[in-house]
Amino acid sequence: MANYSTSMRLKLPVVCIVLEVILIILFGVLVEYDAHTDAKKWHKDNKTGQFDMENDFYYRYPSFQDVHVMIFIGFGFLMTFLQRYGFSSVGFNFLIAAFSLQWATLMQGLLHGLHHGKIHVGVLSMINADFCTGSVLISFGAVLGKTSPVQMMIMAIFEVTLFAINEYILVSLLQARDAGGSMTIHTFGAYFGLMVTRVLYRPNLDKSKQRNSSVYHSDLFAMIGTIYLWMFWPSFNSAITALGDDQHRTALNTYYSLAACTLATYAFSALVNHEGKLDMVHIQNAALAGGVAVGTAGEMMLTPFGSMIVGFLAGTISVLGYKYLTPVLESKLKIQDTCGVHNLHGMPGVLGAIVGSITAATASSSIYGNGMADVFPEISKDFTASNQAVMQIISLSVTLGMALIGGLIVGFILKLPIYGAPPDTHCFEDAIYWEVPGEEEDHDELTTVKTADESEKLNG
Amino acid sequence: MANYSTSMRLKLPVVCIVLEVILIILFGVLVEYDAHTDAKKWHKDNKTGQFDMENDFYYRYPSFQDVHVMIFIGFGFLMTFLQRYGFSSVGFNFLIAAFSLQWATLMQGLLHGLHHGKIHVGVLSMINADFCTGSVLISFGAVLGKTSPVQMMIMAIFEVTLFAINEYILVSLLQARDAGGSMTIHTFGAYFGLMVTRVLYRPNLDKSKQRNSSVYHSDLFAMIGTIYLWMFWPSFNSAITALGDDQHRTALNTYYSLAACTLATYAFSALVNHEGKLDMVHIQNAALAGGVAVGTAGEMMLTPFGSMIVGFLAGTISVLGYKYLTPVLESKLKIQDTCGVHNLHGMPGVLGAIVGSITAATASSSIYGNGMADVFPEISKDFTASNQAVMQIISLSVTLGMALIGGLIVGFILKLPIYGAPPDTHCFEDAIYWEVPGEEEDHDELTTVKTADESEKLNG
Amino acid sequence: MANYSTSMRLKLPVVCIVLEVILIILFGVLVEYDAHTDAKKWHKDNKTGQFDMENDFYYRYPSFQDVHVMIFIGFGFLMTFLQRYGFSSVGFNFLIAAFSLQWATLMQGLLHGLHHGKIHVGVLSMINADFCTGSVLISFGAVLGKTSPVQMMIMAIFEVTLFAINEYILVSLLQARDAGGSMTIHTFGAYFGLMVTRVLYRPNLDKSKQRNSSVYHSDLFAMIGTIYLWMFWPSFNSAITALGDDQHRTALNTYYSLAACTLATYAFSALVNHEGKLDMVHIQNAALAGGVAVGTAGEMMLTPFGSMIVGFLAGTISVLGYKYLTPVLESKLKIQDTCGVHNLHGMPGVLGAIVGSITAATASSSIYGNGMADVFPEISKDFTASNQAVMQIISLSVTLGMALIGGLIVGFILKLPIYGAPPDTHCFEDAIYWEVPGEEEDHDELTTVKTADESEKLNG
Repeated sequence: MANYSTSMRLKLPVVCIVLEVILIILFGVLVEYDAHTDAKKWHKDNKTGQFDMENDFYYRYPSFQDVHVMIFIGFGFLMTFLQRYGFSSVGFNFLIAAFSLQWATLMQGLLHGLHHGKIHVGVLSMINADFCTGSVLISFGAVLGKTSPVQMMIMAIFEVTLFAINEYILVSLLQARDAGGSMTIHTFGAYFGLMVTRVLYRPNLDKSKQRNSSVYHSDLFAMIGTIYLWMFWPSFNSAITALGDDQHRTALNTYYSLAACTLATYAFSALVNHEGKLDMVHIQNAALAGGVAVGTAGEMMLTPFGSMIVGFLAGTISVLGYKYLTPVLESKLKIQDTCGVHNLHGMPGVLGAIVGSITAATASSSIYGNGMADVFPEISKDFTASNQAVMQIISLSVTLGMALIGGLIVGFILKLPIYGAPPDTHCFEDAIYWEVPGEEEDHDELTTVKTADESEKLNG
Repeated sequence: MANYSTSMRLKLPVVCIVLEVILIILFGVLVEYDAHTDAKKWHKDNKTGQFDMENDFYYRYPSFQDVHVMIFIGFGFLMTFLQRYGFSSVGFNFLIAAFSLQWATLMQGLLHGLHHGKIHVGVLSMINADFCTGSVLISFGAVLGKTSPVQMMIMAIFEVTLFAINEYILVSLLQARDAGGSMTIHTFGAYFGLMVTRVLYRPNLDKSKQRNSSVYHSDLFAMIGTIYLWMFWPSFNSAITALGDDQHRTALNTYYSLAACTLATYAFSALVNHEGKLDMVHIQNAALAGGVAVGTAGEMMLTPFGSMIVGFLAGTISVLGYKYLTPVLESKLKIQDTCGVHNLHGMPGVLGAIVGSITAATASSSIYGNGMADVFPEISKDFTASNQAVMQIISLSVTLGMALIGGLIVGFILKLPIYGAPPDTHCFEDAIYWEVPGEEEDHDELTTVKTADESEKLNG
Repeated sequence: MANYSTSMRLKLPVVCIVLEVILIILFGVLVEYDAHTDAKKWHKDNKTGQFDMENDFYYRYPSFQDVHVMIFIGFGFLMTFLQRYGFSSVGFNFLIAAFSLQWATLMQGLLHGLHHGKIHVGVLSMINADFCTGSVLISFGAVLGKTSPVQMMIMAIFEVTLFAINEYILVSLLQARDAGGSMTIHTFGAYFGLMVTRVLYRPNLDKSKQRNSSVYHSDLFAMIGTIYLWMFWPSFNSAITALGDDQHRTALNTYYSLAACTLATYAFSALVNHEGKLDMVHIQNAALAGGVAVGTAGEMMLTPFGSMIVGFLAGTISVLGYKYLTPVLESKLKIQDTCGVHNLHGMPGVLGAIVGSITAATASSSIYGNGMADVFPEISKDFTASNQAVMQIISLSVTLGMALIGGLIVGFILKLPIYGAPPDTHCFEDAIYWEVPGEEEDHDELTTVKTADESEKLNG
């Protein structure tokens, strides 16, 4: 452990500066404003201000901002539950996300289709980049506390790329529908991260176990993340659906799924505890599984009734996963899943993919009418509903394959002892990578001097 | 106290699962998408994508999201001020709200008018359900720390139902205007909750008094709730008004009322303290009274001038209420009002109802022009302004009656010793219902093992 | 120090009540609803509900709410990093902002042009008032912990007035473009505040140095502020630009600038630390400099490429400023800049002004097409691009002059020993102005009584 340094003095600056310079050059060469953001293009045909109100901005930007809050506040604070890893949770989340959204713009732009050799950017590309970033942050949750920021940046480079390829296969080649990303975001991010953490297995992680838990205040900070994710999930699932009833319906379905999921979470959290006490880990995570599980079917005519059933199931399997499956994954399969992403994103993501396939199988013009073309463009053309359902299931399989194989390879790349990962004795510890101040310990004038001395001693 | 258990092992799962199953069945039978969320209905006449932009979603959803934040973050964190009740404050708020919004959809749907025997849902029903939920959370504030989650779920069942009935009487029968809910939400929720807490009076509550106060960090968490409520109150009051100038004006009036209220709050908080020190309880609560007090008149032509006067008055009576009235309510009337909802929602709600009546009395076509039909549909038809004003006052009386009688009955139902309420010695204590981790106490490597042992001892 | 009192018992109530009464009277005399908020005016020509959707509200209010969150949560929590000044940071931020937005409505209304002797208010005036408030809060950051709330209110009166005059000179007289306020908001607020804190220089401030630092939890609270500012800065810079592509492009440019800035911040924060550890002060502040630095050029055809370069530079100079310049400013120039506003708003603001001038200089109709009139109305009429560029630089000079001279004068006004400023030994201390509770210190039943006694002793 002592034969390599955790110092970020050179590693992190080099990685950040080199990557940002590459990004800037590639943006300079490849990226241009789309027709809704370019002064000349937008005004080509629109001579009057009236038409300005039909700019994409007004129909997508509020969704984007909600998604943005989920990425930076939601994911960032959800992971602050660890007692001594708050700076890293919210801080590395911030860094990785700021990088990933730029890299994702390029990767998705290249694969979603160039315009005369250029990538077009606007509010839709911003949402898609945030979505891809979400997937990286899910994987971050699996390895939280056991990796260096440089390791995470390297992971993000590969994961964003694989995400974009998988998304391209699903959406463009297989014609799968997955507006809220049950497959592309959640299943992919979770199983990729689980495979990475498997490869990075630390047999002696229990040397840091005293820090691998929450304290009272850290659980409250984490609830900020949970509640924001919960509230804005309807915006997440509906952010890139077709405009009109599609977006509206997706938000509504997600809202009901989450509400039902929350009741299931509280019910099973109390039930599986021998004293009937609620467990913050369940509330913080399982209550969100309902959003994951309608990520594919949310835009379909799932009905509130169907959404609530899916949400209830998702909350149930998520709590049971935390209680019974996570310990087994760790002891038998050597998967150390810090945040339990398998329970929040993995299983509910797979559930969501299956629900999406079933719902697609039941699509008919008596239900969708002229709205079919928005939800299932292929069924409105030459697919049967069964074709679509099969494509959805193939998409799930492809996603699982890409995630597991990708995670395996990337895991081995990240295993190289050059990234400054923390030793087993110092996992889940901010002080490895951050200047950490002391904690306030007294409240009257006389003793504050002592505090100052003390924190000097601790951090000096 | 010892003869019944506070364990939620069976009680909470049974209540949550039974209620959710009932909800799912009723949703399956009764609920369907409205014309703006259904793929077929929405596309019936609209062949082109252009019309998609006129979907309700784009004009109501941003308001909905702000209201949603107020319900889950605003109310949830506002109540985290107690030193040992943060998990329960934000956690039970979450549970009760997730249940109430589903139940409210049904109750309001049944009373607001069925469509061929079906309840139609869309963004407007989502906002209305959140509004009803807000009322339940106000009552929750009155009984905070002294009740079990099961008790709160039972309270929510009844309160949501009574809320929907009262709302129906006011809006549909009496033709009252109350877009921001000074009467329907705040007055109703506050007096209902006060009556419940009166019936549940605990003469020996001082056995828990050492926990019935804030600590430094819990007051900061509570400020997150306060500030979100304050910022988004303009969205709350304007969320269901008519589109156009009405919504715009309501947001503007609320903004000015809150600003003036804040200055009054700081002024009187310093004035009533013998050392001139500000009290966090006042800042956290009274600064919001301005939003409550323009809940009825906000959509009217109240003018910024009028709004500021109302806000200033609301802040003043709210601070004075906390200082002088709350202790009297407790000692003389045996009303133990944990959050002081009488000062934040009760008195300002009544003030708002009166301001609404006065403003309605002065309505004339020289002020409203063709806009009269949106604000006062009845005055634009066959009411005089005085008729409307009288209806507003009758509505206030009905609301007070419904709240007090309803609270009385429900209070007695909740008094049954079957819900696992905490004993007098363990009120305001998370550890009754939650697995509570220890608190971080040291910061260097050598002592963290001790912490781990210690928290094991405390929670084990 | 002992010869004047810090008690706010009379000072604060008098100031708040007198100011609010003056505001109410002036609003009664001067302010009326604009055409989009007045029931009669809005319905003059619009007979059908259809047109209601073209109300300004739907195109500006989401931006307003994001800006509002930045002002109250963003600025408020960003400053909670001090260990014993959280109540004051978020609380005085709240008070000053609530006052400033009302006063700004009047000052900007008078200078932006009256309508038949009246100030018209609506969502645009709300955004502009929040912008002006932001400038005051920047100055607040410079003097944080060393001033009384009364002092801050007096500062706000003068600063809002000077802000409105400076804004009028820039926008109306010099025809400068500055939609996101690199000059009007950031440069002005920073240099005004720096000059005020220079005049209020406290040679013995090190008597409070033990409190002039963060603790672990206070840094996490501050990150709430940082992340909200970061996420919503695209909305801030685009809030008052022309509708359509302009608003869309501004948000996009700001998004990329901030992302690049964040990578620069992490890179240089690790690089300048001898152990390679990240410094929370840098992350909390410098990562935001990218938003400041595209405040002027964001609406222009800066391209994502240009935005990223600007953001990267801004993050770099901001971190270097914190590390190397702030200590020099304090020791040599006697500028005690609590939050380092020179690094976050001062230098990046000047950079933003220069970038804006350069970008304006390159404007041509081959780039902007018919969109020129929205971004550069004067160039589309009788300016050359060079004229515009010169006007931008003159505007920067005027802003610096107004800020420094204004800050000098206001600093001397604030130096009068009548406002109850804290003594040198009690700076950065909430207990001077607030009833402060104790801190939670134990977690089991047996010892809570001790806590209660203890906190009584500490605060009594």
